[in-house]
Amino acid sequence: MINLLNVQVSPRRDKSLSRNLSETFISHLNDFDSDLEIVHRDLSKVPPQFVDLNWIASAFTDSSERSHEQRKILHKSDKYIDEIRWAEIIVIGTPMFNYGMPAALKAWIDQIARISETFSFDLNRGDFPIEPILKNKKLVVLTSSGEFGFDEGEIRETQNHLIPHLRTCSHYLGVDKKKDLYHIGIEFQEFKDDRHQKSIKNAHQKAQRLAEEISFCDKNLEKVS
Amino acid sequence: MINLLNVQVSPRRDKSLSRNLSETFISHLNDFDSDLEIVHRDLSKVPPQFVDLNWIASAFTDSSERSHEQRKILHKSDKYIDEIRWAEIIVIGTPMFNYGMPAALKAWIDQIARISETFSFDLNRGDFPIEPILKNKKLVVLTSSGEFGFDEGEIRETQNHLIPHLRTCSHYLGVDKKKDLYHIGIEFQEFKDDRHQKSIKNAHQKAQRLAEEISFCDKNLEKVS
Repeated sequence: MINLLNVQVSPRRDKSLSRNLSETFISHLNDFDSDLEIVHRDLSKVPPQFVDLNWIASAFTDSSERSHEQRKILHKSDKYIDEIRWAEIIVIGTPMFNYGMPAALKAWIDQIARISETFSFDLNRGDFPIEPILKNKKLVVLTSSGEFGFDEGEIRETQNHLIPHLRTCSHYLGVDKKKDLYHIGIEFQEFKDDRHQKSIKNAHQKAQRLAEEISFCDKNLEKVS
Repeated sequence: MINLLNVQVSPRRDKSLSRNLSETFISHLNDFDSDLEIVHRDLSKVPPQFVDLNWIASAFTDSSERSHEQRKILHKSDKYIDEIRWAEIIVIGTPMFNYGMPAALKAWIDQIARISETFSFDLNRGDFPIEPILKNKKLVVLTSSGEFGFDEGEIRETQNHLIPHLRTCSHYLGVDKKKDLYHIGIEFQEFKDDRHQKSIKNAHQKAQRLAEEISFCDKNLEKVS
């Protein structure tokens, strides 16, 4: 059995390329693992709150000393983190907005980066006091962008603030960015040309193959354990 | 006379390092240019809305054909863009949140990236169809971060998704990122040590010098014109 958290960001709903791509990935995973359990977290339907002063004060108060009010303030953050804790695979389906995460996705990241929950902080560790708490999760990021050429070595590499940023933040999600972060992107959306159609087709094929690979690894892991 | 738009993001209000640094910069600019005009845009007090489906539909409808409802949806975005249009200097005072912009700042960026307002789009331009509309503005970014070493060539260079992202988006603000974007940052906030105190002191000195330089350039420009 695989627990999968499906985080969707696009406001476009049915017409969204990143949502459709996520559906391809998840439905193929489901074909291979019929006992896939899915929790849906739609950041467009119910957007996260921005982190404010009371949130910060509550998060930095020891959990045993939090007031009723402070526990209420962190309720949604607790819920988001519980979903991550439960999941073995986290899917993030998102458009690139202005070269980075849509604000709603960043608001979710700001809500789940929590001391003593997703990271620990200890000055005895010297200049690198932060360590992640969660581990062994896979992150599959499925994106769409209007322009193109955002991959390493391509023409807009230095303008990609979506994947590198998610990579840096992936430790909060319990993801080893070197081996457990996968990205498939649709490009050329603004150009509406053949390159766009080809990009959609390629991305869906890659998503199918990735589902197969991940499912295969998962079954092998089950046999070993 | 200089028109200055002061965009502040930190939820910490009076205790905020980035707000205090912004105050140093602005008050010194005011010492040199006594007829400074300032508009304050506090994204923590009144956070921007997330871009949703109706917003996108309204923004992509020709302004002459927008319904009353659509004009209402874009009202806040119009206001933000008017403030940018009016300004000659834009100050953004912000903490680094999880290695990038706080979600509220990203929400503001998403609100001001508007077709026919801050950028034009034309497929006749080939693979680079986007061009900025506004120009000749200076952007001063004043930041604080918990960790350190985010500058080019430093140990956390690849984890800096704040300044590079703002740089990429600065064309929407009418800023030539090669010559009119300035950044001064306070670091080491989490460490609360001597390095942090030194970083605060240095940043405030730099902010004073930058105010002097900008004011000097501005006066020379006035003489020339």
